[in-house]
Amino acid sequence: MPGRGDRLERQLVGRELERMLVTDLTNVRYLTGFTGSNGACVCGPGIRLFFTDFRYTERAASEVRAWETVTLTGDWLAGIAEHLAGRVGFEDDKLPVRNLAKLREKLDDGVEAVPAGGVVEELRRVKDESELAAIAAASELADEVWRWSLERGLAGRSEREVARAAEARIRELGGDPSFPAIVATGANGALPHAEAGARVIDKGELVVFDMGAKVGGYCSDGTRTYATGDPGERAREVYEVVRAAQLAALEAIAAGAGGEAVDAVARKRIEAAGYGQHFGHGLGHGVGLEVHEGPRLSPRADDLLAANEVVTVEPGIYLPGELGVRIEDLVVVTEDGFRNLSGLPKELQIVE
Amino acid sequence: MPGRGDRLERQLVGRELERMLVTDLTNVRYLTGFTGSNGACVCGPGIRLFFTDFRYTERAASEVRAWETVTLTGDWLAGIAEHLAGRVGFEDDKLPVRNLAKLREKLDDGVEAVPAGGVVEELRRVKDESELAAIAAASELADEVWRWSLERGLAGRSEREVARAAEARIRELGGDPSFPAIVATGANGALPHAEAGARVIDKGELVVFDMGAKVGGYCSDGTRTYATGDPGERAREVYEVVRAAQLAALEAIAAGAGGEAVDAVARKRIEAAGYGQHFGHGLGHGVGLEVHEGPRLSPRADDLLAANEVVTVEPGIYLPGELGVRIEDLVVVTEDGFRNLSGLPKELQIVE
Repeated sequence: MPGRGDRLERQLVGRELERMLVTDLTNVRYLTGFTGSNGACVCGPGIRLFFTDFRYTERAASEVRAWETVTLTGDWLAGIAEHLAGRVGFEDDKLPVRNLAKLREKLDDGVEAVPAGGVVEELRRVKDESELAAIAAASELADEVWRWSLERGLAGRSEREVARAAEARIRELGGDPSFPAIVATGANGALPHAEAGARVIDKGELVVFDMGAKVGGYCSDGTRTYATGDPGERAREVYEVVRAAQLAALEAIAAGAGGEAVDAVARKRIEAAGYGQHFGHGLGHGVGLEVHEGPRLSPRADDLLAANEVVTVEPGIYLPGELGVRIEDLVVVTEDGFRNLSGLPKELQIVE
Repeated sequence: MPGRGDRLERQLVGRELERMLVTDLTNVRYLTGFTGSNGACVCGPGIRLFFTDFRYTERAASEVRAWETVTLTGDWLAGIAEHLAGRVGFEDDKLPVRNLAKLREKLDDGVEAVPAGGVVEELRRVKDESELAAIAAASELADEVWRWSLERGLAGRSEREVARAAEARIRELGGDPSFPAIVATGANGALPHAEAGARVIDKGELVVFDMGAKVGGYCSDGTRTYATGDPGERAREVYEVVRAAQLAALEAIAAGAGGEAVDAVARKRIEAAGYGQHFGHGLGHGVGLEVHEGPRLSPRADDLLAANEVVTVEPGIYLPGELGVRIEDLVVVTEDGFRNLSGLPKELQIVE
């Protein structure tokens, strides 16, 4: 992955680090391109080392271009420690306590392991063209599976049946689910993290359908809420409040906008309609190699959006014991607005 | 999960621990039954506390029986720290450095966090009846998928096609793959951790087919090597060496047998046939909530087998650039032998 090591190297200066040891596999993949299950890398001025074991030598040869591959035999941490010098950042938010203790035993005098978790995650927020293309492809694939699911109908099938069929369809189309699909009907829709269960979808209900695909390692994430026949006046009213809040929040998205401010746009709309206490989660989050990453759009987020970040915009209203509505788009932040990767309509669709 | 907390509590005495904090989700599931994505538990004399957040209160109410559920709001580690006292074991092999630092800030004077990783994993080695039933069901499901795969034929399809179809079939039958199925043909079979790739399976080749299912959270793991037409004399010879080694190793399995000794039974057979340098991995490993867990059967294992442990027995011979053979059964260790959960024949099967 040309350039990503350079971006990391520039982060080290301000932290007075000579090297950075990266052990989190998602971060290792981001930096080096390696997709196997055992790898680590060390970055510093003039240093781009990727470590793996004999099982992955061949895969590393095809995947890892801009980093020199070192195949370790014997003690893993000792093999890495040989290549560390000065103040070395490590991912304290990921590295287990025992691994740090073992690593410190192997370090030469004068080498210091310094907590520096989150540095690579920061870099991952802004996507390059190849990443945007993968996320867009994942989002298109998921859209296709929503359309396919609606053609098969919702009412009369169980939540689980609809969810498992959608996941299987994602795989048939060459992707993987980025998380287990959520299909939550009626009062189940009021649980924001409901699992798809045995409940059979009835007529005249709202169905929250939250799904994502993964293509080339990159995730999509989206939600639509459908009605299986007329869901009643209250449901339609709640739906329109969420839809208006979602559209308003989208208009607030642009490079330089604050995660708290964008959240507030949707939140105020929902509060004004009298449902403020029923929107119990943040407005959105970044999406990339992981389905939840930075930046955050929430009442407590101090993140400022930047161009080519990819975020969800997903307000919801959850009335306990009654119903839930969530509408979620996946968008690319641009200098003066956003590009919507979700191609599905947002007017309330009645699906039999 | 009645009884499991008691078994853990008994482990604390010898380690002079008053309490144990368990944060690894697989271990939390094992102890409490909780299957969600955010939970932790604290065990000690008279103390069985399970922690989660509001999203999982309902699920915890249905899943967690023998532990008292505490729904935390606000700071997670601070909420847990309130319930810690004396010397508290923590999972140093899993807990990130940063989480330990934050936890220590919250601890009252006199409370000490002591590395104690691996204690729950030790307990998990010996399975109870419900666990054995789940593993047996997973193994039977996988056997059914092998038979189904063979009916569809191997030659003329790509490795990836066979593997993805088998995984889809596992899901159709109500399970999940316990890992991505390995289908490795010809020289690819010589890579013990090959991924199923684009290579089309030819006639007259050996095909290593390694697969597992997961049912009720519990994994199976097994391998068969098939021939697509007569694979030639050398391949048949290698196959028979592996088969004889596998059968001999099975006979060495019983409570009290050493992991190193059982491995040696297979290894010596393979060495005697002149293929010693081509069996480059351990003979087997435990299987349960994870597809790789304790005990180990390998040249460096000091584990002694106990009744109701579940282990793989999987010798292999890998001739680089030429072919690979691996035969893997999943067995329950009994007082005087073993019970084989794998129901597939082991004579070389010719599959078109």
